[in-house]
Amino acid sequence: MDFLNLVRNRQSVRAYNPDRPVEPEKLERCIEAVRLAPSACNAQPWKLIVINDPELKQAVAKAAEAKWLGFNNFPQQAPVLVAIVRENPNLSSKLGTILKDKSYTLMDVGIAAVHFCLQAASEGLGTCMMGWFNEEAVRTLLGVPKNKRIELLITVGYPAKDDIRNKTRKSTDKICSYNKYQ
Amino acid sequence: MDFLNLVRNRQSVRAYNPDRPVEPEKLERCIEAVRLAPSACNAQPWKLIVINDPELKQAVAKAAEAKWLGFNNFPQQAPVLVAIVRENPNLSSKLGTILKDKSYTLMDVGIAAVHFCLQAASEGLGTCMMGWFNEEAVRTLLGVPKNKRIELLITVGYPAKDDIRNKTRKSTDKICSYNKYQ
Repeated sequence: MDFLNLVRNRQSVRAYNPDRPVEPEKLERCIEAVRLAPSACNAQPWKLIVINDPELKQAVAKAAEAKWLGFNNFPQQAPVLVAIVRENPNLSSKLGTILKDKSYTLMDVGIAAVHFCLQAASEGLGTCMMGWFNEEAVRTLLGVPKNKRIELLITVGYPAKDDIRNKTRKSTDKICSYNKYQ
Repeated sequence: MDFLNLVRNRQSVRAYNPDRPVEPEKLERCIEAVRLAPSACNAQPWKLIVINDPELKQAVAKAAEAKWLGFNNFPQQAPVLVAIVRENPNLSSKLGTILKDKSYTLMDVGIAAVHFCLQAASEGLGTCMMGWFNEEAVRTLLGVPKNKRIELLITVGYPAKDDIRNKTRKSTDKICSYNKYQ
């Protein structure tokens, strides 16, 4: 099993084939990958909302539009959106957050989201994690309580093109050192 | 490639074989998996410090001891520790953080950490992400600047046992709903 190849194949897909639906069983395996994800004190502080009702999906996609930022309309194209809501941690994770001044639940949500996207990539699906959207509009559309944050939306669908781009990343020596911070 | 199997095999390893070293090339592939990880606005807001100097490793492991919490001495057993420092985001990620009141960099650190652990699992290595440790002690030992947070320590080594435990997780209906928050 070559995880590094999967990592190279996962990329942010911003053009979808709107006519090719996502098979429910593939979606279910992506959800299973989230369910099994690790979290601080095993708190599992997340809820997924799968948005596959076409009308609702278009409404949520509209709340994720940010044309002035140069974003195009790929959330409209994607047949499925998934919202990730950050839930309250369990007692031990909450104690850690207070005593160590560290938000474990946000790291946990990142872990859950990338588990979803990696499983999707292994199924041949494209995804894009979006942290920029009109959260209040999405909250109203999905009935998310006021005290919960919707941290991410993920677009899901078959890519319009099947090219894998080279990743633009910092070099290893810029992100890693041995035995001392550099 | 079966990512779900890898997810099932990755587990928090809290007992290591202290006599079996970690091959440098395996460690390098784990670092590469972090280097290629996605992040908000491609900010890559992380630095890894690989701690493999035996004396330094024991000193950092001591700072991760929390016996009163019931933790055992597995950080002492593990031949390698990795610290993840959260770095400043780039301008667009920072703007998003301010305008949307959302810490993208913490989610990014979670993503980077689990990429490391998944690659390690695919190499037959065990890991455990630890968010609870004496950050000031580790900061001094590694020379991390005062304005940077050390979010996680990861233990790395060959597991003392090779059993894969069943994961204790919430059921799917507790973490996922369709088209509406539940």
